[in-house]
Amino acid sequence: MQLLQSPAMRPLYLSYCFSSSRYLATITFSSSSNLLPKSILPTFRTNRGFNSTPSISRLSIRNCSSISAKPSSGLRRQKGSSDSSEPDDKKLRALRQLFSKPGIGIDAYVIPSQDAHQSEFIAECYMRRGFISGFTGSAGTAVVTKDKAALWTDGRYFLQAEKQLNSSWILMRAGNVGVPTASEWLNDVLAPGAKVAIDPFLFSFDAAEELKDDIAKKNHELVYLYDVNLVDEIWKDSRPDPPNAPIRVHELKYAGVDVASKLSSLRSQLAGAGCSAIVVSMLDEIAWLLNLRGGDVPHSPVMYAYLVVTMDDSKLFVDSSKVTSQVLIHLKNAGVELRPYASILSEIESLAFKGTELWLDPSSINAAIVNTYKAACEKHLEGLGSEGTGKSKNREVSNCSSGQSWGPSGVYRASPISLAKAVKNASELEGMRNAHLRDAAALAQFWAWLEDVIHEGAKLTEVDVSDKLLEFRKKQDGFIDTSFDTISGSGANGAIIHYTPEPENCSIVDPKKLFLLDSGAQYIDGTTDITRTVHFGEPTAHEKECFTRVLQGHIALDEAVFPGTTVGFVLDAFARSFLWKIGLDYRHGTGHGVGAALNVHEGPQSISFRHGNTTPLQEGMIVSNEPGYYEDHAFGIRIENLLHVKEANTPYRFGGIRYLAFEKLTFVPIQNKMVEVSLLSNTEIDWLNDYHSQVWEKVSPLVEGSASQWLWDNTRPLVRQ
Amino acid sequence: MQLLQSPAMRPLYLSYCFSSSRYLATITFSSSSNLLPKSILPTFRTNRGFNSTPSISRLSIRNCSSISAKPSSGLRRQKGSSDSSEPDDKKLRALRQLFSKPGIGIDAYVIPSQDAHQSEFIAECYMRRGFISGFTGSAGTAVVTKDKAALWTDGRYFLQAEKQLNSSWILMRAGNVGVPTASEWLNDVLAPGAKVAIDPFLFSFDAAEELKDDIAKKNHELVYLYDVNLVDEIWKDSRPDPPNAPIRVHELKYAGVDVASKLSSLRSQLAGAGCSAIVVSMLDEIAWLLNLRGGDVPHSPVMYAYLVVTMDDSKLFVDSSKVTSQVLIHLKNAGVELRPYASILSEIESLAFKGTELWLDPSSINAAIVNTYKAACEKHLEGLGSEGTGKSKNREVSNCSSGQSWGPSGVYRASPISLAKAVKNASELEGMRNAHLRDAAALAQFWAWLEDVIHEGAKLTEVDVSDKLLEFRKKQDGFIDTSFDTISGSGANGAIIHYTPEPENCSIVDPKKLFLLDSGAQYIDGTTDITRTVHFGEPTAHEKECFTRVLQGHIALDEAVFPGTTVGFVLDAFARSFLWKIGLDYRHGTGHGVGAALNVHEGPQSISFRHGNTTPLQEGMIVSNEPGYYEDHAFGIRIENLLHVKEANTPYRFGGIRYLAFEKLTFVPIQNKMVEVSLLSNTEIDWLNDYHSQVWEKVSPLVEGSASQWLWDNTRPLVRQ
Repeated sequence: MQLLQSPAMRPLYLSYCFSSSRYLATITFSSSSNLLPKSILPTFRTNRGFNSTPSISRLSIRNCSSISAKPSSGLRRQKGSSDSSEPDDKKLRALRQLFSKPGIGIDAYVIPSQDAHQSEFIAECYMRRGFISGFTGSAGTAVVTKDKAALWTDGRYFLQAEKQLNSSWILMRAGNVGVPTASEWLNDVLAPGAKVAIDPFLFSFDAAEELKDDIAKKNHELVYLYDVNLVDEIWKDSRPDPPNAPIRVHELKYAGVDVASKLSSLRSQLAGAGCSAIVVSMLDEIAWLLNLRGGDVPHSPVMYAYLVVTMDDSKLFVDSSKVTSQVLIHLKNAGVELRPYASILSEIESLAFKGTELWLDPSSINAAIVNTYKAACEKHLEGLGSEGTGKSKNREVSNCSSGQSWGPSGVYRASPISLAKAVKNASELEGMRNAHLRDAAALAQFWAWLEDVIHEGAKLTEVDVSDKLLEFRKKQDGFIDTSFDTISGSGANGAIIHYTPEPENCSIVDPKKLFLLDSGAQYIDGTTDITRTVHFGEPTAHEKECFTRVLQGHIALDEAVFPGTTVGFVLDAFARSFLWKIGLDYRHGTGHGVGAALNVHEGPQSISFRHGNTTPLQEGMIVSNEPGYYEDHAFGIRIENLLHVKEANTPYRFGGIRYLAFEKLTFVPIQNKMVEVSLLSNTEIDWLNDYHSQVWEKVSPLVEGSASQWLWDNTRPLVRQ
Repeated sequence: MQLLQSPAMRPLYLSYCFSSSRYLATITFSSSSNLLPKSILPTFRTNRGFNSTPSISRLSIRNCSSISAKPSSGLRRQKGSSDSSEPDDKKLRALRQLFSKPGIGIDAYVIPSQDAHQSEFIAECYMRRGFISGFTGSAGTAVVTKDKAALWTDGRYFLQAEKQLNSSWILMRAGNVGVPTASEWLNDVLAPGAKVAIDPFLFSFDAAEELKDDIAKKNHELVYLYDVNLVDEIWKDSRPDPPNAPIRVHELKYAGVDVASKLSSLRSQLAGAGCSAIVVSMLDEIAWLLNLRGGDVPHSPVMYAYLVVTMDDSKLFVDSSKVTSQVLIHLKNAGVELRPYASILSEIESLAFKGTELWLDPSSINAAIVNTYKAACEKHLEGLGSEGTGKSKNREVSNCSSGQSWGPSGVYRASPISLAKAVKNASELEGMRNAHLRDAAALAQFWAWLEDVIHEGAKLTEVDVSDKLLEFRKKQDGFIDTSFDTISGSGANGAIIHYTPEPENCSIVDPKKLFLLDSGAQYIDGTTDITRTVHFGEPTAHEKECFTRVLQGHIALDEAVFPGTTVGFVLDAFARSFLWKIGLDYRHGTGHGVGAALNVHEGPQSISFRHGNTTPLQEGMIVSNEPGYYEDHAFGIRIENLLHVKEANTPYRFGGIRYLAFEKLTFVPIQNKMVEVSLLSNTEIDWLNDYHSQVWEKVSPLVEGSASQWLWDNTRPLVRQ
């Protein structure tokens, strides 16, 4: 899965966007023929949800507690039967009526795409921006004033938004010259001193502060509506129920470290930072820390929850209907108590009153939690009778006095769990290796089948092809879900980095064109993400040259050895240098972190041409290696493996530090036919032949018949010229 | 000349340290046998002069207005006859007596290494830290309180400082664990509320502000002594006169663009930034802008001056005794008036009173100028009768109100001349190419001679060798000076990156060891900087492997093609990757900017493992390409060419932008004997053979006899294995 250029980001946080696929599947193993085409392009943890690329949203997913992996052809039917059939202007009228209700009294309402956890994939009941605007693209922010409504989205969605928005809405083509940001627009259209409201659960603290500061320029006040989401108020009965898929224990043989040890190590970090507790809201962090997996959202095996860990206890805020008796025992053994999901704020308040110094990551923890804590800190202070500040006692207070010994004030920094989760232990790595081999077997079967039927003249659509891939994957032990929506692009569609084939209008896979397939799966023991680009007939010399230069970049990164202090972006140019020689490049990053049986995109590391992320690569991290090249209206090329960062065992260790290198996790042939051998050095030819020899050795025991023959044929050494 | 690791720096400014040589020479052509060993390690434009690596200083240069290139063997004699022979504790007593003089009244005085222009090489009369402390190392900061005196220097100078400092001084080994910074120490030893004084001309505004903020933590006040430098007061008659070498016109055939055009383009930039004038204090910027060259400091053909350019006129603040009649006419033609060097502050005040909006680069303009301007702005404001701020009217006021229409406040950003100067025009490039060929001829003669005498068994010291190199260079047309102190290191000395051979204790060049020679020259038309590493006998396999990996890195950077938006640090890893494969690395940057017949180190671009400098490489810039490897107590390897950044003429231009590549300026053989051919790819062998073929073609017409034979022998193609 590739990374796309996005706005500048804060250090230590990933900012990547990625393409979509057509499958929605959750964590259990049953299947269904309901089809759910989706289009997603989140800006993941950019903390810029408002003014820049709008963030995560999903629409038209009917039932997020579904436990089925669903091929795509049924979606249109579901879209047709949408309950949200009332005209959008009627919704707007209903929304505006709420503006003047007692206790509300606002002039504008901002509806982002996020859920309360800054998740990459979210449950349908949280897709409020889609519901209110009718725009089903994955990225967008809606802003409604008393007499105007505007929606911001980016270039990928201009056409779609034009079709889906009714005349009540102004389409804001974000990134086009002269198009204001949402806050600029608010500052322009509202009379000074207006009240702009948000649901503070849907903004990270950082994002809410940024919005607050931006609109303060025109003296507007940012109002946090804690107790009501105005879109939910008008969505009412047609709003899907919150997801309630059962939680399962992620077995110790896969997790590698028990919950008690993880909590103990977390508590040491808390103590080291002068904190006595932490609030965790990123769903993959909670799943990793508690060795649990859930099924509340597509593609990511996580459950909606908050977690509070103090020095003495841990409380999981989750809908208890998801908690099986096995999970209950597991949590009890780890000393984790259950609390209702909705009771998180009262817990935060109570912690502050007790004087608890909380570690809060302001880029991921929502503004509702942070502001509740800050307000309670202040109340605590006043209660202690120390110099009263006279500040407002409502939840919008901006700052507790910091670091005073007589009261808590919070420690605001990046979550310590992000890095701990990124550095995989031996069991997690073993699971990832095993899952990748089974995935490779499914892919060998798939490619053998596809080449066969294409050569027989079958007319298959891009959607047919990815449906069939899902079939093969489902047969593998421990398969749970796709890890993202499969990108299946023939010819020119391969050049659309965020291409999502739709059953009703996608292309036939053309045997005379390049075909790009980017897909991945969630298994019980690991997460995969692989891209291959193939030609079923005879590629042109130009296609071969481009492919070969992408491959050379892939090899250069794969073979890199580097000091243990190296930041990901230092390696990015290795993957581009061969394209650069002829004036070519690609507009996305080269590598992202991948979770172990968790999110297919995770931080804190990345390998990108952007220089904002200064996290060094560390032993145990997993990153993708996915250079590409895209020629508009012609073809797309990407070659992606996952890599494990390991010690290099160099003969020397200059500077007394370890040197690092990569271990490949992905073992699927790269099409020799696409390689222009004359461009390759002997070392590069050796790399490819060695890789294919390993592929045969590792994957052939898992396949038979035509798949075995295909694997044999596609792992033969390249002949030197 | 190599770059060394240094503290983090601000974007857009170079931070490099470099080694020293033994020659002092100024801009005329006569020669002398006086020898002046030098040791210099400036932190160039780091704006961190105080707390981090101490900055520029030179000691023991007797007469900066000297116009001779001087070999080194005479220095000791001069040192012996030093006028500053009174004991250092006597100096300290005299200095402290001044503390309580009327109008002074201070508790501590900080003496940095800088001159008033943040120069890399400075005149002897400005070497106050060396005079007061007795420590003659190039890097150091002295701090004197009423009862203590401390000197900060870095690891290269610990031994030297131990020898040179008397018992009155505390040696602060900067960088060692537990050693405080100078401001931490001041905060520790002074009673709160003390007055710490500096000469505000010797600190950039940024550096002074940093010091002020740091000591404010203990309520100390930073006092600016404008009218007196306390060290000069006790230095008195023995202080060398300020340099007064005659200024010369840098002919248009070398400069390429006349002064009027440069000033016109500068004024457009001023207008674009909303300014009506600029103060220029970097000496190379003044020389470049006015097409003048001077002889006030060693190695850099510049003169001490300030320049003020308004929309209507230009004023050069310079000692008129340096201005020849030819220069006077040249300046008059360009509309540049002369003013006394010492009158700069009154001009600044007058500009502020006239309401002039000044462009000031706070990282290079000294605190005296910036604070004078700020104070005058405030006075101007009060004079206009607008709301008086009630702020102090002395020169230490920190801020004018910004951007108000009724008064100037200054625009504080990086100098626009730095980038304009870095992007060379066709004439400057032509001059650089020509100077490099003459320099190559001198080097061919030198290497032919050296190999010959070494093989005959001559016992030559490292100093003898660099003296002889100077002899060969002096014979070349247009030779003016060395561009830095030659680094001549045999065996283990080559591993000391900042090695400076001293006549009395340097090594014999050992025919059985590697020999590293880093040197450069100033010619009338260009500036050179080249490093070669050779073996006179049989290198070991390990030496060959290390050399070859350094060479591979050199080739990878030389052959890089990259988008026109690429920042230098993106290319740095190309030069390291082959060393990294076996766990080796080097602790300095890979490339620095070089002036055209100007400073051998210039910004704003660099190629470094440090990520602070985000200046993109641009067509016309010149950078060094100098990877290395240093094995302590054994050998050092560095291979350095200068490169010109040019358009790459790629077949494609992805993204609609130009792609860039490098043109080599340096044409001196790389010793084939050192190459382990089996490590090289065919492409790398082709690179080396092609380079040597070009060297022969370009340089052989300039040499004859044994040098021609040597050049022939050393440009033969490498035989593939």
